[in-house]
This record gives sequence, structure tokens and C-alpha cells, in this order.
Amino acid sequence: MWSRAIKYIRLEEALKAIDSHVKQSLPAEEVDIFDAYGRFLAEDVISKIDVPPCDVAHFDGYALRCSDVERASPVSPIRLKIKARLYPSTKEPISLGPGEAAYVATGSPMPVGADGVLPVEASVVRGEYLEVRHGVRPGDYVVKAGSDVRRGEVVLRKGHRLRGQDLAMLALMGLAKVKVLSRPRVCIVPIGDELTDEVGALKLGEVPCSHALMISGFVLRDGGVPLRFSRVPDDASLISEAVVKAASSSDLVLTIGGASKGEKDLVATAISKIDEAKIVFHGVMTRPGRQTGFAVVNGKPLVMLPGLVQSTIVGYQLIARSVMFKLMGLRVDDLAIKAKMACDLRVPQPKGFKRIVFVRLESDGSDYRAWPLIGESPLLSIPVKANGYVIFGEGLEYVEKDSMVDVYLLQ
Amino acid sequence: MWSRAIKYIRLEEALKAIDSHVKQSLPAEEVDIFDAYGRFLAEDVISKIDVPPCDVAHFDGYALRCSDVERASPVSPIRLKIKARLYPSTKEPISLGPGEAAYVATGSPMPVGADGVLPVEASVVRGEYLEVRHGVRPGDYVVKAGSDVRRGEVVLRKGHRLRGQDLAMLALMGLAKVKVLSRPRVCIVPIGDELTDEVGALKLGEVPCSHALMISGFVLRDGGVPLRFSRVPDDASLISEAVVKAASSSDLVLTIGGASKGEKDLVATAISKIDEAKIVFHGVMTRPGRQTGFAVVNGKPLVMLPGLVQSTIVGYQLIARSVMFKLMGLRVDDLAIKAKMACDLRVPQPKGFKRIVFVRLESDGSDYRAWPLIGESPLLSIPVKANGYVIFGEGLEYVEKDSMVDVYLLQ
Repeated sequence: MWSRAIKYIRLEEALKAIDSHVKQSLPAEEVDIFDAYGRFLAEDVISKIDVPPCDVAHFDGYALRCSDVERASPVSPIRLKIKARLYPSTKEPISLGPGEAAYVATGSPMPVGADGVLPVEASVVRGEYLEVRHGVRPGDYVVKAGSDVRRGEVVLRKGHRLRGQDLAMLALMGLAKVKVLSRPRVCIVPIGDELTDEVGALKLGEVPCSHALMISGFVLRDGGVPLRFSRVPDDASLISEAVVKAASSSDLVLTIGGASKGEKDLVATAISKIDEAKIVFHGVMTRPGRQTGFAVVNGKPLVMLPGLVQSTIVGYQLIARSVMFKLMGLRVDDLAIKAKMACDLRVPQPKGFKRIVFVRLESDGSDYRAWPLIGESPLLSIPVKANGYVIFGEGLEYVEKDSMVDVYLLQ
Repeated sequence: MWSRAIKYIRLEEALKAIDSHVKQSLPAEEVDIFDAYGRFLAEDVISKIDVPPCDVAHFDGYALRCSDVERASPVSPIRLKIKARLYPSTKEPISLGPGEAAYVATGSPMPVGADGVLPVEASVVRGEYLEVRHGVRPGDYVVKAGSDVRRGEVVLRKGHRLRGQDLAMLALMGLAKVKVLSRPRVCIVPIGDELTDEVGALKLGEVPCSHALMISGFVLRDGGVPLRFSRVPDDASLISEAVVKAASSSDLVLTIGGASKGEKDLVATAISKIDEAKIVFHGVMTRPGRQTGFAVVNGKPLVMLPGLVQSTIVGYQLIARSVMFKLMGLRVDDLAIKAKMACDLRVPQPKGFKRIVFVRLESDGSDYRAWPLIGESPLLSIPVKANGYVIFGEGLEYVEKDSMVDVYLLQ
């Protein structure tokens, strides 16, 4: 008695199907820049001002009019009257007339009329006068208005995840608030008669909701809000009910377990019984992770993650994460660490399949070596020991020691 | 009128000084595993149980005693009585006698006496009997007790930052709580007469506390708790007061600005006036970032970050972060992305100095190219455009296009 057949499609096809079935749908919200760390921009940020807003001294020294000192030399120094002392906090603008200079500390607004700075180390001061012994070029030691950011410039792009330096830039542009995408609410639904909410003192026939906890961590890492959902037993009606409820209160539903083809693998059956649900695919050509499925339930995306833990991870990294990012209008675009395989490795795989191998990256000083960690799909110790994974493409039988591979981080 | 001389030391010496002046001092606290994502382990985690705790079926099929079916073949199949159906949730242990088998779903505890599983695809069932047509080897399709983790095994090391899969492992080991280091409280003290708490509608002579906001983001990223501290004017007494107060309420103090040698650079002066304070170094041979300093104030570490933003970043990444990690008993150990320089680059630098260059990593399909972003130290747009940086060592004048460089991510 099988619940459903599984029809495997290539990873590329699966990603294409996600792309066409998931709309960018997260609403934007305006948040204080002090609360915006790690959030994704909902729109391009265009500066309404020049940064810096005016010319600023780049060095402690004397602001002057370069034309005044064109002919200065050690034998015929030119004397300028020191008119004022300026600091970054100086609030009154001043201007320099011919023959005048002003002390400027680094970061001070330049006086009107001044176009260069003579650094303090090169300055000779006699009483109220500055003796200039060589010419200063216009722009010397000046940070020009708008040289950091020009008014009208697109400084940060929609979808960018805000880092510390980006927040600082928003502040310099005079923006106290910023429009970010609301964080995707991801409802995690662990399925299985054996699941228990207990963790300590497990009994025979009881398994903690460890995978749901793991996926919560991944969702946090990726900028989402994990919503914990009660475990659901292996019962198609209860699963249907839970999934509908989860979809109504979240942006993305992730079921865990029940995605294979055994008699208690009822997730696909449960989804197919929901009126407003459609299974887009069930079965992806990745090993592990091939029982991963994708459905739309009452307009909300749902990813069926398989229950053997290495499959759960691969299903999340390659499929669920793509859905979550698409909700934000983004694509997964991971950086890879180039590493040498630390030993030979056989990676046989059926036609069309990609093989995901967990690895431990180790530095040998100048290069990285990737040690493959091989073990059956239910072994959690493999991804715990790993700090990355490699995706081997179709048709590769064998990877030789010292081959270069792309390692994606598993953080 | 200079506040103090700056004596530059090499980066390696600076890190050594930090190592000898900062003790691992953060207390441990016990947290629920559901709240432990991103926390650092306070001690090694040793498993008190085998994972899985008993032999478990790795596949849907029939558990049997391999010795019963040693001589099975298609022409002389061996019949076994199907005694029970087992699931991962089965709570009553059963045992198999000679001639008996039991259906097992993936993840089910194996019956006592059974030592192999015949996968369901290879099974022929007639009524209450299983017909076995070939031998099964002991261990076939069985996940042995302890094969994931053995009782007594060190599973995670002290200092490890907990990821999703690690939390799942703690749950499987039956641990509901875990000892983690308390998050370092980092007090950020922006210094400067020009600073304002306002962000919108800036006036001449006013600068928002953008750098403090930036550093808050970095501290969050690195697992600390950023404490916002009021801006302090350029006044040695007020700075002393602020620094002492900051030290008393945090694990690490980071001042921003006032670290150079201008007349209003008063941080070092202010610290030297505090009875229980010692400046360990002021001046590190990095460009940018050379005005970075390190002190101990009332037993608490303090890093003086320079105020020009690229210097602030380098001082944080290379110095402040090392202090923060040392408080946790850890070392900074960043992974690097290997990339080809996208163009020639001159990196002249004084003897002993390291030059930090911000770069934009771009993938060209199989490789990464690092585009150097060059601009004066106060320009924030450089680290905003960058997603990484390269540290060029002493004595390097020139980097050729296509040279391989190590890029550290700037996230």
C-alpha cells in the first residue's frame, strides 16, 4: 500500500517551477535604521543629498585659496592671515577672502572660497599668520561634497541585506527609517507518530522534534521568522488540517517527514485532498534529498522536506531556501570556497542526479582541503562535523584527490 | 598642541598583546536548546547516550534473523512468519524467535534478535508469511545503536557557535539545555563635538552617530550584545568619565573617534588620566586603521577605534573582534575566498605595515574576481560597495592582475 508515486525531476527544473509558482509577495514595512540590521531592502535606496553635504577637510591643517599661494616657495613664502579655527562641529559657515586662511581639523566643513588644505605638518605659523612655502593644488586634502555619494545616486539595491556599514550609510544620507521586506514567516510542521515535545529521558518509540529545531536555526540564519508548529501524527486528515492552518498564518510552510513512499508517508496524499492545493513536484534528482516536494496550498508555498536528516538539510538548502528567497524577490547566490579534495572519492549517481557531499574544510596554510564525510542519510553527525558541502554534477563517477571543488558553507 | 604621540607596532605584536592582556572571562549560562541558536558553547558537549539509542531500520522492509535465511534462494525460498508491524513510534519492544520476521518502517527500532532488514521492494508476502529468496547480511539496512554518536563521545567542542544541525544533535542526545557563554556586552562610545542623535535634516556642524550604528551591526553579527552609549563631546574629563562608566557596565568598551593626534583627539589622554587604566598600545601598522589603540580600564578591555570610517572598520575587524573573541576564549579564524585580482594594483606601504584593500568579489562562472575599491579613508561608499577585503603583507609594492588573493568577507 503506497501512498503515491514519486516522479523525480532535475534540480534545474525544480528551481524553474519554484520561480514560476512563487510570487514576490512579502509586504514592505518601514523600520528605524537602528532596528534594520540583517533586514532585506524593499526598494532601491537613492540618496536625496550629497555625502558629504559640503567640502570637508581630509586632514588637520590650513584651508586656503590655492590661487593665493601659487607662487609660494621656501625663499619667498607667502603670508596668509589666519581668520578662524574650524572643527567638524563648527556651525557657522565662514568664507575666506584673498590672503586669508583658516585652521581646519579633519572633518571640518571647508570655508567658502577655500579650495585646498595645507597639512599641519607642512605649516609654519607665526602669530596670527600662516607662512606658506610651497603651492597647494586645488582639491589637496579636501573631501569634495558628493565624493562619497552623489545626490540622486542609487546607493543600495532592492533585496540587499543590510550590514553595519550600510546602516551607517543610511544615517549619513539623513535617512532615519528605511523600507525593508517583512521577514518571511516560516511555519515548520514536523510530522510523525513517534515525535514528542519532550527532549530529556526519551523512551522507546519517542523521537524529539530535532529536525524542526534544526530548520528553525536555518530560517533564523536566512533572515526569516521560524514559527513552531505542533507535531502532527501520521494521519492524512490531521496533516491536511495542519497544513491548511499553517498556510493561513505564514508565508511559507515546511513539512518535515512523511515525504517518502512508505505506508505512513502521507504528506503528499494529505495535500492532494485539499481543495485549493496543488502539488507542483514531488521528487528532485538530488542525493540525498530526492523525496523533497513542492506544493501550493491556498496560495501559499509549501515545501515537503524528507525526514532523514541529511535529506532534510539538502531539501532545505536547495529547495526551501529558494522558495523563501523568491518570496523576497531574490535568488539564492551563495559564495563558494575553492578547496582541494583531501582524498579520492567515488560519487556514483543515477543519470540526471546531483550528489551532495558534506565536507569538513581545513586550511593547510595557503589552501583549503575538503575532507568528505560519508555516512547514511539518517546520520546527523555528518552535517554536525561538516562546515560545508559540495554539489557534484551529473555523470561524475569519481573525484580525484587534489581536484578543485566549490564548497558551500553550512553555517 | 598634540595630545600624545602614537607609537606604531606591528599587527602581530598587537594581537600578541591582546592575547596576554585579555582573559577568557565571560561567564557560562544554561539556556534552553530552543533559544541557543548562534550561541557559543561554554564547554565540550559529551553524549551521555548512544545515538540512535537502539538499532533502527534504515529502510521500509522486514526485519529478520539473518541466520534463518542464509540458504534462501529463488528456487528454494525460506518462509518466515510475520509476527508484527513496527513503526518508529512503536513503544513495546518485541523479539523475534527462529523463523520469525517483522515489518519495519524506516526509523523503527529493530526487534530483539533481528540483525538485518530485507527491503520491501525485494520482499514477497503471502498472507502472514514472508518468502525470502536470497540471503541477508547482518547489518543490512540497519542503523546500529551508537553509529551516529557513541556514549561518551565529544560531539561539539567548547567555543563552537551553535548552528541548526548542532541544536538538533543536542535534542537527539536528550539534552534540553546547554551551557553557553554569556554574550559579550559591548559598549560603544562615539566621541566628537559634531555628533548628534538626530538623523534626518542634518545641519552644518552636525554628524549622526553613523559609525556607532555600523559597529552595533558588526557586534550583532559576531554574537555580541551592542550597548548604545550616549555620544561624548571632545572633552578629556567627560571622556574619562564615560569610559569608566562604560567599563563598569560591559565586557568590552569600543570608543570611536578621537584616536588620532590632533588637538581634539583626546581619548588616549582621557584614558591615561584614569587611575586604574593602562594603554597597552596605541598605533598599529595597518593602513587604514593605524590609529587603533588598546587599553585596559578598571580591568575591562577597551579598543580605541579611529574615526575615519575605513579605519574604524579595519580597527574593528582586526583588533576589536580579536578582543571580543578572546573574552570567549576564541581566536578569530575567518575563512577566505580565493579570488583573482581583476586588475593591476599598486599597494605601496611603509615598512612593517599591512595594507587592507576593500574589494568587490564577482563570480565569472568558475572563478571569483576581486575588484579593488580604492578611495580615501573617510569614504563610506567604499566598504558599502565592497563585500570583502584583502590584507596585503609587508613589502608588497604591486599586485598583478590575475594574482590569486585571499578575500575575507565583509558581511
